Amino acid sequence: MARLVMKFGGTSVANVERIRNVARHVKREVDAGAEVAVVVSAMSGKTNELVAWCREAAPVYDPAEYDAVVASGELVTAGLLAIVLKDMGLNARSWQGWQIPLATDAAHGAARIESVDGARIIAGFAKGEIAVVAGFQGVHAETGQVTTLGRGGSDTSAVALAAALHADRCDIYTDVDGVYTTDPRVVPRAQRLDRVSFEEMLEMASLGAKVLQVRSVEVAMVHNVRTYVRSSFDDPADPRLGTLICDEEDIVEKQVVTGIAFSRDEAQLTLRKVADKPGVAAAIFGPLAEANINVDMIIQVVSDDAATTDITFTVPGAEFDRAKALLESRRDKIGYTALQGTPDVVKISAIGIGMRSHSGVAARAFKALAEKGINIRAITTSEIKFSMLIDEAYTELAVRTLHTLYGLDVKA
Amino acid sequence: MARLVMKFGGTSVANVERIRNVARHVKREVDAGAEVAVVVSAMSGKTNELVAWCREAAPVYDPAEYDAVVASGELVTAGLLAIVLKDMGLNARSWQGWQIPLATDAAHGAARIESVDGARIIAGFAKGEIAVVAGFQGVHAETGQVTTLGRGGSDTSAVALAAALHADRCDIYTDVDGVYTTDPRVVPRAQRLDRVSFEEMLEMASLGAKVLQVRSVEVAMVHNVRTYVRSSFDDPADPRLGTLICDEEDIVEKQVVTGIAFSRDEAQLTLRKVADKPGVAAAIFGPLAEANINVDMIIQVVSDDAATTDITFTVPGAEFDRAKALLESRRDKIGYTALQGTPDVVKISAIGIGMRSHSGVAARAFKALAEKGINIRAITTSEIKFSMLIDEAYTELAVRTLHTLYGLDVKA
Repeated sequence: MARLVMKFGGTSVANVERIRNVARHVKREVDAGAEVAVVVSAMSGKTNELVAWCREAAPVYDPAEYDAVVASGELVTAGLLAIVLKDMGLNARSWQGWQIPLATDAAHGAARIESVDGARIIAGFAKGEIAVVAGFQGVHAETGQVTTLGRGGSDTSAVALAAALHADRCDIYTDVDGVYTTDPRVVPRAQRLDRVSFEEMLEMASLGAKVLQVRSVEVAMVHNVRTYVRSSFDDPADPRLGTLICDEEDIVEKQVVTGIAFSRDEAQLTLRKVADKPGVAAAIFGPLAEANINVDMIIQVVSDDAATTDITFTVPGAEFDRAKALLESRRDKIGYTALQGTPDVVKISAIGIGMRSHSGVAARAFKALAEKGINIRAITTSEIKFSMLIDEAYTELAVRTLHTLYGLDVKA
Repeated sequence: MARLVMKFGGTSVANVERIRNVARHVKREVDAGAEVAVVVSAMSGKTNELVAWCREAAPVYDPAEYDAVVASGELVTAGLLAIVLKDMGLNARSWQGWQIPLATDAAHGAARIESVDGARIIAGFAKGEIAVVAGFQGVHAETGQVTTLGRGGSDTSAVALAAALHADRCDIYTDVDGVYTTDPRVVPRAQRLDRVSFEEMLEMASLGAKVLQVRSVEVAMVHNVRTYVRSSFDDPADPRLGTLICDEEDIVEKQVVTGIAFSRDEAQLTLRKVADKPGVAAAIFGPLAEANINVDMIIQVVSDDAATTDITFTVPGAEFDRAKALLESRRDKIGYTALQGTPDVVKISAIGIGMRSHSGVAARAFKALAEKGINIRAITTSEIKFSMLIDEAYTELAVRTLHTLYGLDVKA
């Protein structure tokens, strides 16, 4: 007998009518003989409403109480879905994070799952019961307080639950029908991928693809959970399977480049004529790390006078002003002649496990972009991807150029 | 050191600004040196929204899942109040029903409290922590599922918690400033009572006064919890104490009649010429009881032919149509010549512990109403109250007449 975890996000459970549609998807799998646990998010908009109340209550709100408030949204959806399933004549029960229990650490607002006890839910399966699980939340064992996993945490709930239940599959139902070679809104000829490896998906999610939360892919990879990304908008009676995220071993034909990701949420900062001596990097990046500003690409170029160096790096767009102010306040300690920067940059990445065994993959991209007159501001590479920082105005041109270059366009 | 339970209902926590006002009331008591547990309801309108979703999900919804959904409203208020209190520099923590735990039976939707464990909250007091408790909810120990206490259940949560914590006082903050001799909207000269006994309050709540849930008064009486009804709209810096509900022993001057209650939610049914023989009452009231229709006043009058009898009784207004249909369907089994009825009746009651030692109290009422031309359709009495069924059109006239008759009008 197959055992499945099915996860439905906020837009898929936006109102009771949509929840009824979710129930039809669940019924299809149950009718086919599967044991099913369903993980649900809050109805879309509800979490934002709860967060807004917390902000109104206090500018700096207590994170544990914030969790107690915002985790309530998923309880509503789980209860409503259980009601609908029972009304359809199925056997179902809702599960709150503490009831399972799904134990986390105490990092309220962004807690990490420590353990998931599958025993009670499996006992329910033996009685023919569908488990309807409130996503996004857990409980901290010592304090007994409710915790949340952070935005998009329901994906992680689902994958971790699938691992605990030894499920055959974890289906993440979303508003797209799978993982694409790139964003179809930018490249209409983008293709849905049948399979993508955990490593590639992890890079794609980290580099800007929004289809899955990074942490959920990590958990899927560690526990080798076969995870499908598929559409909740498909006909419940005849859905497609979407994209399988799986072990590299299960992918027969490895593409050199599997996908092109891009992130507009980048900003570039450059410090001119920094003394080229030991300790200067620490003087710059130490304070940024302490301020919880995440630095990504770093490049260092020796200045024309050879005794100093120009240092360029990127930070998340939302941190641009804060990073700039911090560096300005430390100008004397660091020592530089000018601080320049712009939030109008984009990071474009090509990802593919085939890169491991092919050389010159990135070089082809540099040449193709140069031919289109696109200036590359910075480059970083790793084993299965490379990223380039370019002017934001060239985003679409660069993405389309690379998509065609690596043979990803759908055949006409 | 005083130990208090403070309870705030839906209109007192309707939005974040009102929750901030509640926090000021709490701060006043904490600043005065009290250990405080606060019980809160859902923000007004939220429970109705959640109930409406359950109804939309299924016409006959699963009661356990209904509880999981509707209990979420109180979690939001409790978390928000804890955030506001912490923002004021106070030490606070929210408590969900299962965290206390507040254990109930399994009667989902109208569960009864079985036990309240005060130990964790008292341990919090020792650390200077204010407990903010989500009202209306508990947990069933065997299933681990969330239960709710039924509408108005937060009053009962508060009183039961006060008993478990051995609190000196339970303050029920509401949108009125106490218990009145009758509804001031009907009788502008109604007076606020300084003290009312548990027994009287129980009758008043049962007979139509909406200020407190009946069950909460029962719990207060059993555990002898000194309970104040007071206004959340008072200035938090200078509030009044409202009405104390207390043991009869603590009331020095016992009124013959303390208050006049009335309930418009009544309907009258009369069966004409029922055979006057054993078993006929069972044939009528047995099926009504099985259908969960609550029968209140019953009067039986021998018909003019002496071999038959007319039977009149009341049911809740909402059950009128159902009761009528049920009796019509059983006409052959019961045997009657006509079924008559009207929902346009009202039950008016006078309540007072002084009735025990005074005779002729009700007779004065019958005479006074007759003088105003008000026909009494039925009468019931008990040790400390009597009730009369009259035409609904005479409600205000009858209430004002009795209020003046028993000397309850405020002195001009």
